Amino acid sequence: MKKNIYQAKGHLIDSGLFSKIVNTILDEGLDYSVEEMVIGKQPDEQSVVRFSITSNDEDSLDSILKKISPLGVYTLNNENAKFEKADKDKHAPQHFYSTTNHRTEVFVNNKWIEVKDQRMDAVIVKENETTLRCVKLRDIKKDDLILVEGESVRVYPPQIEANTGGFAFMSNDVSSERRGEIAVSKIATEINEIKKRNGKIVVVAGPVVIHTGGADYLASLIRNGYVDGFLGGNAIAVHDLESRFLNTSLGVDINTGKVTEHGHNHHMKAINIIYGQGSIKNAIDNDVLRDGVMYEIIKNNIPYCLAGSIRDDGPLPETVNDMIEAQTQYAQIIKGADMILMLSTMLHSIGTGNMTPSSTKTICVDINPAVVTKLSDRGTGQAIGVVSDVGLFLKTLSEKLNCE
Amino acid sequence: MKKNIYQAKGHLIDSGLFSKIVNTILDEGLDYSVEEMVIGKQPDEQSVVRFSITSNDEDSLDSILKKISPLGVYTLNNENAKFEKADKDKHAPQHFYSTTNHRTEVFVNNKWIEVKDQRMDAVIVKENETTLRCVKLRDIKKDDLILVEGESVRVYPPQIEANTGGFAFMSNDVSSERRGEIAVSKIATEINEIKKRNGKIVVVAGPVVIHTGGADYLASLIRNGYVDGFLGGNAIAVHDLESRFLNTSLGVDINTGKVTEHGHNHHMKAINIIYGQGSIKNAIDNDVLRDGVMYEIIKNNIPYCLAGSIRDDGPLPETVNDMIEAQTQYAQIIKGADMILMLSTMLHSIGTGNMTPSSTKTICVDINPAVVTKLSDRGTGQAIGVVSDVGLFLKTLSEKLNCE
Amino acid sequence: MKKNIYQAKGHLIDSGLFSKIVNTILDEGLDYSVEEMVIGKQPDEQSVVRFSITSNDEDSLDSILKKISPLGVYTLNNENAKFEKADKDKHAPQHFYSTTNHRTEVFVNNKWIEVKDQRMDAVIVKENETTLRCVKLRDIKKDDLILVEGESVRVYPPQIEANTGGFAFMSNDVSSERRGEIAVSKIATEINEIKKRNGKIVVVAGPVVIHTGGADYLASLIRNGYVDGFLGGNAIAVHDLESRFLNTSLGVDINTGKVTEHGHNHHMKAINIIYGQGSIKNAIDNDVLRDGVMYEIIKNNIPYCLAGSIRDDGPLPETVNDMIEAQTQYAQIIKGADMILMLSTMLHSIGTGNMTPSSTKTICVDINPAVVTKLSDRGTGQAIGVVSDVGLFLKTLSEKLNCE
Amino acid sequence: MKKNIYQAKGHLIDSGLFSKIVNTILDEGLDYSVEEMVIGKQPDEQSVVRFSITSNDEDSLDSILKKISPLGVYTLNNENAKFEKADKDKHAPQHFYSTTNHRTEVFVNNKWIEVKDQRMDAVIVKENETTLRCVKLRDIKKDDLILVEGESVRVYPPQIEANTGGFAFMSNDVSSERRGEIAVSKIATEINEIKKRNGKIVVVAGPVVIHTGGADYLASLIRNGYVDGFLGGNAIAVHDLESRFLNTSLGVDINTGKVTEHGHNHHMKAINIIYGQGSIKNAIDNDVLRDGVMYEIIKNNIPYCLAGSIRDDGPLPETVNDMIEAQTQYAQIIKGADMILMLSTMLHSIGTGNMTPSSTKTICVDINPAVVTKLSDRGTGQAIGVVSDVGLFLKTLSEKLNCE
Repeated sequence: MKKNIYQAKGHLIDSGLFSKIVNTILDEGLDYSVEEMVIGKQPDEQSVVRFSITSNDEDSLDSILKKISPLGVYTLNNENAKFEKADKDKHAPQHFYSTTNHRTEVFVNNKWIEVKDQRMDAVIVKENETTLRCVKLRDIKKDDLILVEGESVRVYPPQIEANTGGFAFMSNDVSSERRGEIAVSKIATEINEIKKRNGKIVVVAGPVVIHTGGADYLASLIRNGYVDGFLGGNAIAVHDLESRFLNTSLGVDINTGKVTEHGHNHHMKAINIIYGQGSIKNAIDNDVLRDGVMYEIIKNNIPYCLAGSIRDDGPLPETVNDMIEAQTQYAQIIKGADMILMLSTMLHSIGTGNMTPSSTKTICVDINPAVVTKLSDRGTGQAIGVVSDVGLFLKTLSEKLNCE
Repeated sequence: MKKNIYQAKGHLIDSGLFSKIVNTILDEGLDYSVEEMVIGKQPDEQSVVRFSITSNDEDSLDSILKKISPLGVYTLNNENAKFEKADKDKHAPQHFYSTTNHRTEVFVNNKWIEVKDQRMDAVIVKENETTLRCVKLRDIKKDDLILVEGESVRVYPPQIEANTGGFAFMSNDVSSERRGEIAVSKIATEINEIKKRNGKIVVVAGPVVIHTGGADYLASLIRNGYVDGFLGGNAIAVHDLESRFLNTSLGVDINTGKVTEHGHNHHMKAINIIYGQGSIKNAIDNDVLRDGVMYEIIKNNIPYCLAGSIRDDGPLPETVNDMIEAQTQYAQIIKGADMILMLSTMLHSIGTGNMTPSSTKTICVDINPAVVTKLSDRGTGQAIGVVSDVGLFLKTLSEKLNCE
Repeated sequence: MKKNIYQAKGHLIDSGLFSKIVNTILDEGLDYSVEEMVIGKQPDEQSVVRFSITSNDEDSLDSILKKISPLGVYTLNNENAKFEKADKDKHAPQHFYSTTNHRTEVFVNNKWIEVKDQRMDAVIVKENETTLRCVKLRDIKKDDLILVEGESVRVYPPQIEANTGGFAFMSNDVSSERRGEIAVSKIATEINEIKKRNGKIVVVAGPVVIHTGGADYLASLIRNGYVDGFLGGNAIAVHDLESRFLNTSLGVDINTGKVTEHGHNHHMKAINIIYGQGSIKNAIDNDVLRDGVMYEIIKNNIPYCLAGSIRDDGPLPETVNDMIEAQTQYAQIIKGADMILMLSTMLHSIGTGNMTPSSTKTICVDINPAVVTKLSDRGTGQAIGVVSDVGLFLKTLSEKLNCE
Repeated sequence: MKKNIYQAKGHLIDSGLFSKIVNTILDEGLDYSVEEMVIGKQPDEQSVVRFSITSNDEDSLDSILKKISPLGVYTLNNENAKFEKADKDKHAPQHFYSTTNHRTEVFVNNKWIEVKDQRMDAVIVKENETTLRCVKLRDIKKDDLILVEGESVRVYPPQIEANTGGFAFMSNDVSSERRGEIAVSKIATEINEIKKRNGKIVVVAGPVVIHTGGADYLASLIRNGYVDGFLGGNAIAVHDLESRFLNTSLGVDINTGKVTEHGHNHHMKAINIIYGQGSIKNAIDNDVLRDGVMYEIIKNNIPYCLAGSIRDDGPLPETVNDMIEAQTQYAQIIKGADMILMLSTMLHSIGTGNMTPSSTKTICVDINPAVVTKLSDRGTGQAIGVVSDVGLFLKTLSEKLNCE
């Protein structure tokens, strides 16, 4: 019978984290015993809980920390973390520590050091005695010092640090029966607050934005300074251009909604115009492209990345076809974002979520409630869902923000 | 080898009906041969096709007419229809003719007579030599003369009579990627045209209208004279009243979107207030209820029916709990409707569709594309789908119609 | 500044209930202070927490108990509950207490008395000094003693009493990406355990069961003794009969999947056959109906109720058209059920959930994940979702239970 | 007033094509007049229709052919096609002809020549006097002779050439209420027929196949010779490997369905194992990977392509990260396919559909009916939808095909 002592500290009770911790322990067939518990008596006080886990099954006991560490649990052993050298490029030691998207500290040289560039599914490399950094498996270099699993990591899920605040009303709220107008108002308020403190807002958007008539409204948000970074794919740009050059989106007339039988080729005409110009940028410089989402992005020097995909037509010259490169650019653009607004694109939303720390406010607008569930299943648990027609959503948001 | 001759007349080609006819014949393993075909050379000209079907399998040949008759096919035999007496109440002869929702004529006394009260899934009763009427199975009286299957029926699917016109753009269009704003504009135009000619518009609505913030907008449509009949269930009335008395809908605050843990009991408080008043009508007369959907309906003397269901709370005094009675009232209210606007309620929409002739313009607004598909599967093939957030849809419609 | 003291006792921490309690308090803008907390040190020990809430806003303070009482919170005042007389039939006093679906005790004559016939959205009537009962608003009689809101109620949400156990894996799990086969196996195991202890299983089913080919499998479950009560509507019976008499379901051939153009009238033929026989029961007695879901239900004397609805055809003689009566029969049939299996019918599932205590294991199988969310939104929070094709689900379940 | 003469030939009536043709004309505000019509009198006879279109609006008249050409309409002018030289790489002449996915002939040197490598959204390059080929915009070389829009193209939509046959039952049938077992049987029969004549079957699959427990069944289909090409992304391979090395899929235990809190990192462990081996292939050769989908694909030398995407982890060494290259490999693998089976992946299905000629039988299995609609909206109109749990679908298919 072996027994280990663990501790967690923070908003354990109101966040429900302690509940998740004990359920995880019980699900593994282990027993726990609370050794000491100091409950935050007022809402702003933190709680501390020290508990032991005992088991005959040493394997379970060894692996339980891996499962409860993402919930904010750590040991009190104060052992320094162990690092092992990568035996070759792109290959971590067998028992490498794989990161969460939560703020993380590692015990090195008898001190807790915060890890830089936090993101999920990375390894932690010790660059020097005081610098630890999240690195993707593929970016490991031979002889990099890689953190291995052990008892020297402390993870801070966002709930442990503070309450989720005014947006809590929408948490896990992906029902399509809730009032869309209210959600828009709250998001507008939040956006205004972020911009007041010079915060950063990144938009991730799919082509449905164009099909549903949201293009002019999204363009107005950009023109009015509400967008500091833009992530999408080839398709949203193609359909934005199609709508500017040929007044259709996927062959559907933007103004009348009339479907042109094989008006589908309109998007090819748009691509060919850009190919003739050499790039979207050239088309703007040559006064060929005069408005729309891509126009505003480029004209206002908004950092952006159009990531390629297997289903692309063209692709446009500005589209980044190498996925490694596209992921690098995406990661650069979201750096330091206060809010990410994901508009009707599961693919790019999951891609973005993968590289976003859990402390970033993330809002996901889609007519399909399943998209938010899936985003959350993939680790972006902080995403707040708004089930709505994205075109009408952008119209209302643009109005609430008084965009011109 | 037996051979029968059939004919169809009308917009056979542009409507695609002739295509459906020959495919139905081939699917049954039968052969056809076109005997004569006169094609409408201009768009407004009708076509006539005469064709024969031959088969060794007499059973298939006997039953094929049942399958192609709803597509507008009839024989040229000019035999008078056969009627059989009902042997008892509520029981049709074994081979009774079951109606479609399309305009229907029957050959009686060497003349084609149009059937009254057309609806689907009824029998046709000969009231006298010149009057035929659709009657539900359950309303059959002993000795009623019931039309039996045979060769003396002519059905006019709506496509055979005219093109579907300006709404065609949305036919079978249940994709959530289409632009909601355009759909609203077209519907507003159509509503204006109907009201200009003193036409009749019936609204069928579910409680999601209230939850999504559409109540004030729907109330404004009623107040401004755009609604001539209202069909719903107990729930939309309960939640409308809850929002008036307690400012919540299903316990969700109408203005802030905040969910009250077990604010669910608010709807019970609302019901109790009405129980105390005796009825919604009394609550209005006593100045207890002063606005909202139910207020406008009753204040403006709009004919309405709230049909009960197994999931009702209360139910409200105005709710009709006997389903036979509720169906009777529904049927009365839709009589002569030019447009039926179905708002986020599959149950009541299918119920209404069951008793509506196919010539009535039917629009179905729901955030879930599957609802329109299901409505169409259940026989209401004329329904045009708009996939949208119903709250934002009503807001936009109310604005386009300049409602105050 | 006013201050009240509250207590909760049970599985507060592992269940997450205490987290919900403090968040509810904070959402109301109130402050709390933990006075004393005894944490269950081992998994099977209960916790006790005593805390105070203070506020300048007496209204909020007065209403907070209503919001946290469903989470298991009560006062220590030991005041006897107050009851007020109903001033007339069907009308509760203004501040009547509206029930949850959780086990409830009321403090009467200095003792906690458990309420009988627990269900949500009822009032509590004091029948005599030792008997309290849930009664629907509409069943209130003049002079009934109705419990009013106050501090003398104690509610036991299921989480407070025990862990959710082996089914936890599926809780709130409505993702369609999880493995259906595993869910079926767990349900089969659970069903076997319930039947071993002579427990009661009720099935609620919609017509999709027939359309998707599940009829024979559901019939086999009934024949093999796994179903102790059956709830549905007119439609599942009609399509079951249609499939037996005419080999189609909604006009779709059961064996070939071929759609018969207007084979839709087949269900009317089925209804007419039953109308001719007088009832489904007669059709069985007369050897006209020889197998299927309705056959097995009636042959095996399974208590059942077919509730009418506004969209019914017929309806069948066995269908209960008065909704008050149908709700009464439903409530009778689910009494004492250990498991309710809800198969692809939102309407009847919500109807059933409304009258089911939260302690009843409830499983909801539907191809649409939104159905489970909606059921839970409507108060049936204990429902576990399985997203699956219900036909294939029943086939697999029937196999796992070795049904013949 | 200008007037043009057009003709169409083939299964115009039963296919509904002529209906679409005249509706397209009317939607454009043009008039038509049927000059001559010879109707196929028997089912296997083709029809011929010659008609004129007149208009004052020459622009509409000029553009109408573009809209009706994809429906099989052509002129009788017998003018030779015009080709223009590309002025630079990757740039077509302004009025280039953009292809459909239907078989296409071009009139060159007074002869109709069939275009090679048919796919949608391509240009047609004249390689020499007798060879025309579909080329993507990006593959155009300076001085390539590119077909421009005009009157010398003849398109053969699949309906014009033959009836859709035994699968018609499922066409446009994306309702989740239809019987899954029947669909599986029909597909199994079709697969057997294709394999009997040594036909080619390509599978496109997403990671949901693994999550829903379909991996062993898909592996058995490959092992038993039913799969001749495999298209997917990085994710299906990662989760297949995760399930083989760690017995979980996305952290969910394959056998028990239990979710491991942050078991999500399991997929990173799987990637690291492959990184250590250098490739999936090496892992098989070194006996590290011994079964599963990727094992069977590589062991049986099935041509495959894993296309990268912005949301990939790793990616695996075998994943193709450059989208241009991935599209090239995809196109190579589907060449000559008789059937493409698309399993729960919208991204790769649309990508595949984009390059597939419309004559290829395409089946799309997904639990979400919207996926098939979207695939069809994107031009893959021939796709037949099966709404089902893909895990249970593959289990049943594997059984019907007697896979070991």
